[in-house]
Amino acid sequence: MLRLTLDMDDVLADTHEKLIDIVLNEFDTIYSREDLMKDSLRNLLHPKQYGKIRNILLSEGFFADIPVKKGAVETVRRLSDYYEIYIATAAMEFPNSFVDKYNWLKKHFDFIDWKNIVFCGDKSIINSDYLIDDHTKNLIPFKGTGILFTAPHNLNVTGFQRVDNWDEVSELFLPHR
Amino acid sequence: MLRLTLDMDDVLADTHEKLIDIVLNEFDTIYSREDLMKDSLRNLLHPKQYGKIRNILLSEGFFADIPVKKGAVETVRRLSDYYEIYIATAAMEFPNSFVDKYNWLKKHFDFIDWKNIVFCGDKSIINSDYLIDDHTKNLIPFKGTGILFTAPHNLNVTGFQRVDNWDEVSELFLPHR
Repeated sequence: MLRLTLDMDDVLADTHEKLIDIVLNEFDTIYSREDLMKDSLRNLLHPKQYGKIRNILLSEGFFADIPVKKGAVETVRRLSDYYEIYIATAAMEFPNSFVDKYNWLKKHFDFIDWKNIVFCGDKSIINSDYLIDDHTKNLIPFKGTGILFTAPHNLNVTGFQRVDNWDEVSELFLPHR
Repeated sequence: MLRLTLDMDDVLADTHEKLIDIVLNEFDTIYSREDLMKDSLRNLLHPKQYGKIRNILLSEGFFADIPVKKGAVETVRRLSDYYEIYIATAAMEFPNSFVDKYNWLKKHFDFIDWKNIVFCGDKSIINSDYLIDDHTKNLIPFKGTGILFTAPHNLNVTGFQRVDNWDEVSELFLPHR
């Protein structure tokens, strides 16, 4: 069985959506929801506001209730019939996220064994045939075939095979009827 | 640079020693310290007592104050001049250990970047030239060269290159003067 490794934030989990909700509801901002889907928050926000976002990401509880990306659960469940599925998230950047992330995966992806979950930093350590990730910094050092999952911060990136959503992951990786 | 990945429990950390202290001080036992160095606690202890050990391993705080193995810090520091060092621990088995393990590494191995720390389950996911580990279940699925670090539970295992302590790691991996 080939091994397919999935990133968590902005691939399985709609992390950007939760952050946008915070910006729209709690920050003083001129942006609309549509504006905030066009680039990274790092590029769009004032450095002071982006600093606040970083602090929110670093705080306990942030990762506990992130919405699941549309179609992710059903597609991953079907993929697990054809691939050895691993989930690899750069949790080491946010040590307060460990338990939240572990519980989130248990809640939404309970069919993934704990043996197949990886909290890492640099993803060059991942031994897998495929990696689906929204960050080129993760895909570049990866030794297998990397697939870029579209996110606001990577809209202008070229040079990677790209999927826009879970329907496209299903299209690319599952047998056609 | 070749990549050398190190396991944590019973390789960097003297986990067995902490468990033996608990058995000798808190359990009703006929064993001496020497006896408890001759086999795994799973084999030596009554199932009820071993169940208690499992609960201790699962509880928050257990991993926070484990002693460091003799020579580990100095040797890993010297190895990091010659190898890309990663630390990979099967933390997913003990979700309450995440923060303890992260803080333990920051305290004793602060020269290892967070990007080079991996909390995983199955170590077949580790992409590395070498892995030093005390468990054959981790070394067998590993794709690179595995080295068995001697521990009470693996004394009778054959078929692996073996190191007994950090002096022997140094001998094997560092250039001789």
